[in-house]
Amino acid sequence: MARGRTQKVIAAHFDARGTHRRPEELIVEEPLEIRLDDTLVTTTMRTPGHDFELAAGFCFTEGLLAGAGVQTCRYCGTGSAVETEFNVVSVETGGRAPRPTPRLTTTTSSCGICGSRSIEDLTARLLPLRVEPYPPEVLALVPDRARTDQPLFDETGGVHAAACFDRDGTVTTLREDVGRHNAVDKVVGNLLLDHELPAGDFGLYVSGRASFEIVQKAWAAGFAAVVAVSAPSSLAVETARQANLQLAGFARDGAVNLYSEVAG
Amino acid sequence: MARGRTQKVIAAHFDARGTHRRPEELIVEEPLEIRLDDTLVTTTMRTPGHDFELAAGFCFTEGLLAGAGVQTCRYCGTGSAVETEFNVVSVETGGRAPRPTPRLTTTTSSCGICGSRSIEDLTARLLPLRVEPYPPEVLALVPDRARTDQPLFDETGGVHAAACFDRDGTVTTLREDVGRHNAVDKVVGNLLLDHELPAGDFGLYVSGRASFEIVQKAWAAGFAAVVAVSAPSSLAVETARQANLQLAGFARDGAVNLYSEVAG
Repeated sequence: MARGRTQKVIAAHFDARGTHRRPEELIVEEPLEIRLDDTLVTTTMRTPGHDFELAAGFCFTEGLLAGAGVQTCRYCGTGSAVETEFNVVSVETGGRAPRPTPRLTTTTSSCGICGSRSIEDLTARLLPLRVEPYPPEVLALVPDRARTDQPLFDETGGVHAAACFDRDGTVTTLREDVGRHNAVDKVVGNLLLDHELPAGDFGLYVSGRASFEIVQKAWAAGFAAVVAVSAPSSLAVETARQANLQLAGFARDGAVNLYSEVAG
Repeated sequence: MARGRTQKVIAAHFDARGTHRRPEELIVEEPLEIRLDDTLVTTTMRTPGHDFELAAGFCFTEGLLAGAGVQTCRYCGTGSAVETEFNVVSVETGGRAPRPTPRLTTTTSSCGICGSRSIEDLTARLLPLRVEPYPPEVLALVPDRARTDQPLFDETGGVHAAACFDRDGTVTTLREDVGRHNAVDKVVGNLLLDHELPAGDFGLYVSGRASFEIVQKAWAAGFAAVVAVSAPSSLAVETARQANLQLAGFARDGAVNLYSEVAG
């Protein structure tokens, strides 16, 4: 298996002129096993690259660190083959994080009874944000700026992006991944490992839709705003309002929809 | 919380002419707790509707039924409030399915060591398909036909679709969901509950990308082909080739890319 982030295959392209074979660049998708102090936490299908950010960001946004600092991250694959070596990462807190228990889902710690309960689970561990909202004209700038720095999308068309932007709407970090939640965790992990959390001075951009999961992760990281190129879900809007998090969707062509009023 | 599939909110729309408030229709996202013979299997964030198909389809595509037939599906929420009543579904096999064990991820039962291992896990329980491939001109017809029947996308712009199509490229069942894996599970669950699996006479359409997870589910259901409007991942292509499953991507404007050669 290739170790890169893209992989070339030969495909048969069919159109009105007939069929011809041609090379196509695919986005690489491989499992990453994430451990916390050597205990298995989850397996996620991701695009290789920035794996430490992904693992640390996931542990943070899912509330698994519970305030513990990350001492280091390391690859701990035990396979002798090269391809198995880089698909297991352990996030090390020196045992300061609570020992994780097996969970039934990667997307939410909700018990599944209802959406309100999912939000209640979050409010039990997260306080409403106290952050300065962005002017909409700044939020509307971000998608075009982020779009100029998505090389894997340009190559494959099969990848999501997430980015961190500042008060001027300037993109400071951008990550691409086959999973949009992974792209967000990589951005959050980057800030975490740089000791820049909570992220109240920054906004989070996502290249697709805004689901509950995305808003949950943004809230955990303390972003002032989320800007999504596509639609939010009902639960994303409800959660953003509860979090006092500015949520913008359909951010395209210089326009943007604001779904939550935020008290500055 | 609304019981519908869409929900209206007031949003502030900003563009070059300024800001004005207007109603926006959102896709509803709520957790569904899936049980198998009353044992919790997973919680998935889904759009309400066709919940029995989703639950049964999930249990089937994830290999949890192990050949057992579904006797019935039922809602089993215990909350007194209306909104909690329809977010827990149990798939009943009369105890014929193996008792599920807690799993660490909803997306794959892989141990996470490498992509090859993920495929090995599948080949251990699934045989390569023996199906007749589709002519590419039929596959290229499907996206436009499926697109005419996506009312929730038309209303909200925030939803994926999956569909079952026949040898003429005619769409026979279409489901929409905030999660693309859920949309696929609903289509598979529909076939399962109608006793139409394995689905070798049918193809599976997805409105977005084709990941490993989508191909895995299509393989489990025995579809002859998968047609995705957007890009496949590397692992999706590898898995489709292993499965002898026809995988088509970038199906738009009458063109299509075929990523796997299928022996008929």
